[in-house]
Amino acid sequence: MLDILEIGKRAREAAKQVNIAALDVRNTAISNIARAINESRGYITEQNEIDIKNAEKGGMSPAMIDRLRLTGARLDGMVKSMGKIVMYPNPIGRAESGTTLDNGLKVIKTRAPLGVVGMIFESRPNVSVDAAALCIKSGNAVILRGGKEAIHSNLALAEVMRRALSDAGLPEDTVQMVENTSREEAEKMMKLNGYIDVLIPRGGAGLINAVLKAATVPVIETGAGNCHVYIDAGADIDMAVNIIDNAKTSRPSVCNAAETLLVHEGIAEAVLPKIKARLDKSNVELRGCPKTAALLGDCVIPATEEDYYTEYNDYILAVKVVGSLDEAIEHINKYGTKHSEAIVTRDYKNAQRFLDSIDAAAVYVNASTRFTDGEVFGLGAEIGIATQKSLVRGPMGADALTCTKYLIYGDGQVR
Amino acid sequence: MLDILEIGKRAREAAKQVNIAALDVRNTAISNIARAINESRGYITEQNEIDIKNAEKGGMSPAMIDRLRLTGARLDGMVKSMGKIVMYPNPIGRAESGTTLDNGLKVIKTRAPLGVVGMIFESRPNVSVDAAALCIKSGNAVILRGGKEAIHSNLALAEVMRRALSDAGLPEDTVQMVENTSREEAEKMMKLNGYIDVLIPRGGAGLINAVLKAATVPVIETGAGNCHVYIDAGADIDMAVNIIDNAKTSRPSVCNAAETLLVHEGIAEAVLPKIKARLDKSNVELRGCPKTAALLGDCVIPATEEDYYTEYNDYILAVKVVGSLDEAIEHINKYGTKHSEAIVTRDYKNAQRFLDSIDAAAVYVNASTRFTDGEVFGLGAEIGIATQKSLVRGPMGADALTCTKYLIYGDGQVR
Repeated sequence: MLDILEIGKRAREAAKQVNIAALDVRNTAISNIARAINESRGYITEQNEIDIKNAEKGGMSPAMIDRLRLTGARLDGMVKSMGKIVMYPNPIGRAESGTTLDNGLKVIKTRAPLGVVGMIFESRPNVSVDAAALCIKSGNAVILRGGKEAIHSNLALAEVMRRALSDAGLPEDTVQMVENTSREEAEKMMKLNGYIDVLIPRGGAGLINAVLKAATVPVIETGAGNCHVYIDAGADIDMAVNIIDNAKTSRPSVCNAAETLLVHEGIAEAVLPKIKARLDKSNVELRGCPKTAALLGDCVIPATEEDYYTEYNDYILAVKVVGSLDEAIEHINKYGTKHSEAIVTRDYKNAQRFLDSIDAAAVYVNASTRFTDGEVFGLGAEIGIATQKSLVRGPMGADALTCTKYLIYGDGQVR
Repeated sequence: MLDILEIGKRAREAAKQVNIAALDVRNTAISNIARAINESRGYITEQNEIDIKNAEKGGMSPAMIDRLRLTGARLDGMVKSMGKIVMYPNPIGRAESGTTLDNGLKVIKTRAPLGVVGMIFESRPNVSVDAAALCIKSGNAVILRGGKEAIHSNLALAEVMRRALSDAGLPEDTVQMVENTSREEAEKMMKLNGYIDVLIPRGGAGLINAVLKAATVPVIETGAGNCHVYIDAGADIDMAVNIIDNAKTSRPSVCNAAETLLVHEGIAEAVLPKIKARLDKSNVELRGCPKTAALLGDCVIPATEEDYYTEYNDYILAVKVVGSLDEAIEHINKYGTKHSEAIVTRDYKNAQRFLDSIDAAAVYVNASTRFTDGEVFGLGAEIGIATQKSLVRGPMGADALTCTKYLIYGDGQVR
């Protein structure tokens, strides 16, 4: 088993080649991965079964075991995703802008690979293949560190990917999976300055906070999603019911699901009973403010301050009646995690004010928050959704795994 | 004296207004600052004199005192810089890309302010005015924390800027200067999550490393510049001498000055004596490899491994004779800080290989490294030069102080 420092050294060596590999070589590697996954279904499923058996023995919840399972459909999804990443335009070498200075210097701003990307992720082994392909597309080497519970699946996928890389003429070490899944090794990885250029944690708030605290390498914060839907006075009631139902119940475990519903007091009486009736079909627990309770009755659990800060990732929704659009904006900017926020309204001015005043990666008018996703937004796939304030906020595809590089052509100029 | 938490709260409040202020209001504030500095020259110079007297009493070196001094020319420079920042295009609200999805959702990728920027800087008080103006231009509030030695100058400048902001109808707290310059207060500032969105240290390696270590808010690493000039076999010898002389001696204290000269062995005998003759005029100390010493004699101090890692910021140059372009690239990528790197060559292929293989914010062919600068590159001014691998690497102007914000216009779409 390689230790993380040795893995870092190998990644740095591999980066020298993949950083300057031509687009067709990088695309061939990604196509090879798709083919190799297809051809190795038996082996991958067999290794995945070991993880699942261990998880069952360990008493893991059925929902978590489901996340762990590499079904045929999920393997199909991975293969399809590779195709989309191949089709995506070259993120490297693009000249973004350029000029010739008065002294004749030609200054061209281009995009270059980051170098070595580190990724720490939880449970879902299919995440690693998307991440690796996006890194290859953008000319980076990648060090993947998944959870202990998925180690057999992850190692199998890495083995398949490494062979595919080698067949395309790229170093196998372009993609490495950390086999030692101990906490100590993960903490060493977070401090691997000089070997890892950017570290991306992907998982729950616990993982992300642990990385932010311990890491000394630059981190791109991703994913925590305490998202809101605000129903403005005069909103289309059917639309409002559909949107909050979809945002809450279509997939409660993901980061773009809604956690709190805000309702203008002018429409609360008309809309809240209908929302309750709809959410009851999915057994959604409501935690509401006193006005919500007054309108909906005893079924509403009183919401605490803590509730408004919580990303439930479950069939639970906090509900608050607000006196104005301003109060809604204030609430969202205070309690939200700057991920995805939606207003349902018929009022043009209120829609614009919401778009302008909400501080989040994605702000929606009259649509569900569930659309915030790299594939939906046309990036092919995503390595995560950045919520930190930076030039790459939002879904991160291959373009987000690059850095600026100025090329300057001179003829002897001095300053 | 306000404590840093109170300063953070006030910045957050001010941000609510400046984040959504119209371009003309932001530009008016910057123009007001220019006028106010012009009109307050007497007061600013008087406060600056106090700092200088204290520095002289404290035995500060003449070079450092020079950095501290706000001369008439420097005040002129600040005023001129404001004009350039006003002329720069609006960094906020620009639609970078956009599309209509199959379901009719309109997804527009735009640029929004970061929110609150923190800046910790050393000695030169004029830096604070450029930084504040770039933050205002990009719709951000800013918390400035300068050094103890410049506190009177910094507070005077802040006072003038705050009045100018207020005259433009923006909150004074858009720009705040931390009065408590203790180390403890600075460390609290580095952990002011929720109040500071991005922290930018600007100064020497000591400051930057201290911030990287202690900060829990996102940091943009800036500035450390261990830059190289490589002279290829067959280079134009006069050009090579001019470029290394300029890169080393035109302003040795800045981050884009060269620290190490690499020379191809095929040209070393022809070029090194001429370089030595030229650098002797500025009394540059040479620390060389054995081959350099063999060619130039006893005046060369033997270079250690440590020398190749060092940003001297002084009239000292490390010199190494290399056997090939590849060796030069390897050396630069190992010892460099990914700031600015130059090759002097007549060979087209070698120029391209150098541009492709060097991992740095700015890579030059046949020009001095000294050009890496926000104003030179057309950004009006700069808040620092990012050397960290991220989308904002290189000189950071107003555009670098923004983040992505997706606006999504729907009509009831659910997923």
